[in-house]
Amino acid sequence: MSEPDTTTAPRVAVIGLGAMGLPMATRLAEDLTVQAFDPDAARLAEAREQGVVAAATPRAAAADADVVVLAVRDAAQVEAALFGVDGAIDPAATAAQVVVLTSTVGRDAARAVERAVHEATDGGVGVVDAPVSGGPARAGAGDLLVVVGADPQARERARPVLGRLASTLTVVGDRVGDGQVVKTINQLLAGVHIAAAAEAIALTRELGLDPEVIVPLLSTGAAGSFMLADRGPRMAQAYTGGAPVRSRVDIFVKDMGLVTELARSAHVPTPLAASAQQLYLMAEQAGLGAQDDSSVVTLLSAPDGGAA
Amino acid sequence: MSEPDTTTAPRVAVIGLGAMGLPMATRLAEDLTVQAFDPDAARLAEAREQGVVAAATPRAAAADADVVVLAVRDAAQVEAALFGVDGAIDPAATAAQVVVLTSTVGRDAARAVERAVHEATDGGVGVVDAPVSGGPARAGAGDLLVVVGADPQARERARPVLGRLASTLTVVGDRVGDGQVVKTINQLLAGVHIAAAAEAIALTRELGLDPEVIVPLLSTGAAGSFMLADRGPRMAQAYTGGAPVRSRVDIFVKDMGLVTELARSAHVPTPLAASAQQLYLMAEQAGLGAQDDSSVVTLLSAPDGGAA
Repeated sequence: MSEPDTTTAPRVAVIGLGAMGLPMATRLAEDLTVQAFDPDAARLAEAREQGVVAAATPRAAAADADVVVLAVRDAAQVEAALFGVDGAIDPAATAAQVVVLTSTVGRDAARAVERAVHEATDGGVGVVDAPVSGGPARAGAGDLLVVVGADPQARERARPVLGRLASTLTVVGDRVGDGQVVKTINQLLAGVHIAAAAEAIALTRELGLDPEVIVPLLSTGAAGSFMLADRGPRMAQAYTGGAPVRSRVDIFVKDMGLVTELARSAHVPTPLAASAQQLYLMAEQAGLGAQDDSSVVTLLSAPDGGAA
Repeated sequence: MSEPDTTTAPRVAVIGLGAMGLPMATRLAEDLTVQAFDPDAARLAEAREQGVVAAATPRAAAADADVVVLAVRDAAQVEAALFGVDGAIDPAATAAQVVVLTSTVGRDAARAVERAVHEATDGGVGVVDAPVSGGPARAGAGDLLVVVGADPQARERARPVLGRLASTLTVVGDRVGDGQVVKTINQLLAGVHIAAAAEAIALTRELGLDPEVIVPLLSTGAAGSFMLADRGPRMAQAYTGGAPVRSRVDIFVKDMGLVTELARSAHVPTPLAASAQQLYLMAEQAGLGAQDDSSVVTLLSAPDGGAA
């Protein structure tokens, strides 16, 4: 690797230092100047230890930034980060700045953000729709999958930043929202596959078989999925204290909502995604919203032998 | 490879020369003596060309066989093949013979077959529960995945035959039915994953995106499954004349029935498997029963733009 080119290296702001935002900021700070904001002082302090400059507000973080990376949870948080009190969007900002939306908020919300940013800055600031997947560990290693929807000019300004975060960076369309659509279809499959793994493991367990034998066996064949191999072992942990939280149940409550809303708007029946959505909602009602999503298996096979 | 040991090489009968039975019989005939029966004369003739000896009845095929391999569609065909007119089970058969059940018929049906065989032969003939998966091409190459439930003695008698059919042969239990349980869980995942792929591809298509771009992209990440990679391209063919039939819709009508019945008996909720079962039933009602299972996608996104 060559030394970073400091004459063209973009200055970066990262708004949101959650499960994904913190490792992304840390990764970018390896060779770029990164200012970051999060309302949680502990997260900010953690970022500072990794070479990130802590900012007091979104506006302060974004003030000198060429690329403003949003890594917040949902559309409401995007709105607040950009347009709330001390929000990142400065009406005086110029076309040198681009906002990169890495959150999964859905097609329509992403397009609304783009319209609002353009209106607030008189078309100056660009918007790049770039939802990511891969989880915190891969974020920190620059090994994310990123699907991009944006016009070519905005895309090019964001590329030095996204290129440091992604091992696979795919432009799926020229419009903001195109990335969200592909990410939403990704979440349809991911959310259904987790629920399917939960059904298979619950059934295995209730029939008295050992999931630690059956899951690896099935993973090699026609029943295999990324989620079966990844979440299967975590679901076994649900009965021995619970898996460490890597991806929360309430993320899929949100994302399966985006899936079924997008499908409805396109008049496409998605009976399995709709069933999976109900399962995540039930898990949330059961108090598992902040738990690892592998915990949904406990709704289908109770830890204390509910059906026995 | 050494020459087959003709002093201990088992004589084999194969009953049923369908999509799986014919390549299995052909594979076994590479180095064993195989007598086969199928009611369809064309299938019998095809087997004969591959070195299989054609028999006029199940009884004739099984008369001299050490290992009787059943490769029929469902429990009713197993019953007919074994106990119908000129059925394979000869009450005078000895403990030298073993019946190998490769069909997916469910736990309870497999156990009923075992009881009936034992009763008819006074406990002489053994039964091995050995459902297979992998499809016709892998059957012909001896590359199947086989899960075995049977007592050790019966298992050992079947091993020379199953070893020639399987690349992965796993003993999952000592009881007939144990193999069926694991295969049923396999089908839960496979059937749900096909339906999930159909939802994702239908949505992709109705949103005006190209599944041939999106499916390979999603297959590499958290959304990946064997079925997405395998059936995805076949689902695209559903709009250009239909994929060649490799696995029929009505197989999953049967198998998702076994899944939901087993789950019900174990008091395990399987909302996604139940939804997938409804999708396969709808496909059957739509006249797709004998079509490739990839055709279910056309129920979710109509070929002629139904929702447009």
